[in-house]
Amino acid sequence: MTDALASGSTIGILGGGQLGRMLAVAASRLGLRCHVYDPAPDGPAAEVCAAATCAAWDDEAALRAFASAVDVVTYEFENVPAASLDLIEAIVPIRPGRRALAVSQDRIDEKDFLRDLGLATAPYATVDDAASLEAALERIGAPAILKTRRFGYDGKGQARIMVQGDAAAALAGMNGAPAILEGFVEFSHEVSVIGARGLDGAVACFDPGENRHEDGILRETTVPARLTASQRTDAVLLAARILTALDYVGVMGVELFVTASGLVVNEIAPRVHNSGHWTQNGCLIDQFEQHIRAVAGWPLGDGARHSDVTMENLIGDDVDRIPQIAATQSALHLYGKAEARPGRKMGHVNRLTGPAR
Amino acid sequence: MTDALASGSTIGILGGGQLGRMLAVAASRLGLRCHVYDPAPDGPAAEVCAAATCAAWDDEAALRAFASAVDVVTYEFENVPAASLDLIEAIVPIRPGRRALAVSQDRIDEKDFLRDLGLATAPYATVDDAASLEAALERIGAPAILKTRRFGYDGKGQARIMVQGDAAAALAGMNGAPAILEGFVEFSHEVSVIGARGLDGAVACFDPGENRHEDGILRETTVPARLTASQRTDAVLLAARILTALDYVGVMGVELFVTASGLVVNEIAPRVHNSGHWTQNGCLIDQFEQHIRAVAGWPLGDGARHSDVTMENLIGDDVDRIPQIAATQSALHLYGKAEARPGRKMGHVNRLTGPAR
Repeated sequence: MTDALASGSTIGILGGGQLGRMLAVAASRLGLRCHVYDPAPDGPAAEVCAAATCAAWDDEAALRAFASAVDVVTYEFENVPAASLDLIEAIVPIRPGRRALAVSQDRIDEKDFLRDLGLATAPYATVDDAASLEAALERIGAPAILKTRRFGYDGKGQARIMVQGDAAAALAGMNGAPAILEGFVEFSHEVSVIGARGLDGAVACFDPGENRHEDGILRETTVPARLTASQRTDAVLLAARILTALDYVGVMGVELFVTASGLVVNEIAPRVHNSGHWTQNGCLIDQFEQHIRAVAGWPLGDGARHSDVTMENLIGDDVDRIPQIAATQSALHLYGKAEARPGRKMGHVNRLTGPAR
Repeated sequence: MTDALASGSTIGILGGGQLGRMLAVAASRLGLRCHVYDPAPDGPAAEVCAAATCAAWDDEAALRAFASAVDVVTYEFENVPAASLDLIEAIVPIRPGRRALAVSQDRIDEKDFLRDLGLATAPYATVDDAASLEAALERIGAPAILKTRRFGYDGKGQARIMVQGDAAAALAGMNGAPAILEGFVEFSHEVSVIGARGLDGAVACFDPGENRHEDGILRETTVPARLTASQRTDAVLLAARILTALDYVGVMGVELFVTASGLVVNEIAPRVHNSGHWTQNGCLIDQFEQHIRAVAGWPLGDGARHSDVTMENLIGDDVDRIPQIAATQSALHLYGKAEARPGRKMGHVNRLTGPAR
């Protein structure tokens, strides 16, 4: 632990949502303080952080003061503007590093990176206009899905093209933003691996979880996932290859389609991930602490799971069920958000289903 | 959950040490905010609380502002001055209630209360001067232990009387404070039950842990404790009797001596307890969340344990071992205290020893 941050050091977190909140709580267990930076006031993270800066991403004075007040910077979402990161990085290290952010901020760059690593992805093509969309559909075929290259999450900025005739409307929906056409992948189910890489290069992965989405939003993750032993090994090796290629430091979420011909990478997220929330109650060291350990230069946990878990997201009106859920043997994790809007992640609940199988 | 605090409500915590810190983290999981009150600046709790008041216990304006800013008040230690509590209670409920505090603040009142409930305690007598000490020693015999009636913790304010000749020095050590003489109890080991009672009167207990002390300070708690099935039942029934007699709301620590003739109550603490820290990694709902659930009027967890655990306190210089401990599969819980003084609790570590037996 030569390079490790000592107890009492401060971790800066870019983004003050629920992921930042749970990172801050994990940091407190290691005796570390957190300072959150977010343009929005009163986000979920600030109330469990030692310090909070509420300022715009282009507020250079605020960014400088923030960077000078902390020992290392991490982030809870991948769309922090590059100029803000440049300014911070001149003062203090950012972990995970810029390469991971650059790759995951752009769906084409991400797919190119994965393909260059020899990993399977959905067929894809760049779409800038009607002509390139037509060419892409020619090659990939319908059904396919058109997505903005940047700034998409939870199914936002996406349009399905079931038949050629849907193409014009889908393209219009991109509002002129650079896009990617992705072919559909025939898969039986989706799993994700939450992997981590330490400052010393050590890699540790949690057991893959099986994800079920509704309306493009993660609904449930179940551990263990339905996977053969060799699929399980493949998933871990693949995650390790990605982490190492990026010289990554921190936790990453890797979403995988399980297909008859092997695992296909859906997408990567350079941060703690919703599909890893089960680790809070299934593991001694959860994904949030694992991420903090990595960015603070501490040794990683080994990812061992003591219990099988089902994680359910509480979205929008699901908060009405909290009184019933609270009366059952389940671990609630609420984010302290005042207003429950449709599609808004308000919390999640972990249920143990027995000792780890 | 008719009387339950809604997500976004604020819990006031009197005392800003590590127990307050871990209570605040647990509250965050339920979407609740915390506001800590402590005369000392920069305590462990403030950095994970939404608000902190640093003011003296007799600062009436600060106490009133604090009480007006929160929805309920709880405490992490039992020696909050009664006048401060009077002032707060005129504005907002205090949980656990005043009766539990009064009883546990005074060793004679506590013993009287337990005896009136029909529970076994060490033989004891009030000591105010040399004459009453002589009479007490006459009745109880040596060896015995002389303790201040109030404000003792971790072996402070105590003197052993091995032979009659030690009496004068022991009495001098009390500095004129009212005292209690307690006879020694022949016991094989000490266990503690962490019990909880909800606002609705429901009682839930965690499995008893076995405690090992060094120099009067808890060193290690192991779960499960060495107890027969009937001792286990006795321990739970006895804790429930205490909780109900006090119309208690919250978590209580009950320390018990295991003797050939049954369980003898050593002491009770009207708060989360060091010997319950194992629940953070052995249970889905730990003692801190259980306490928050109780004071917030939520349903209690059932106390179920998924894993066997050994909890080790990290005291003073033990912090030098943190790098080694961090490299093993164990859950560190550090309190963020800057200075490691001898006897100071700096953190603890939970190690899982297998699925619950």
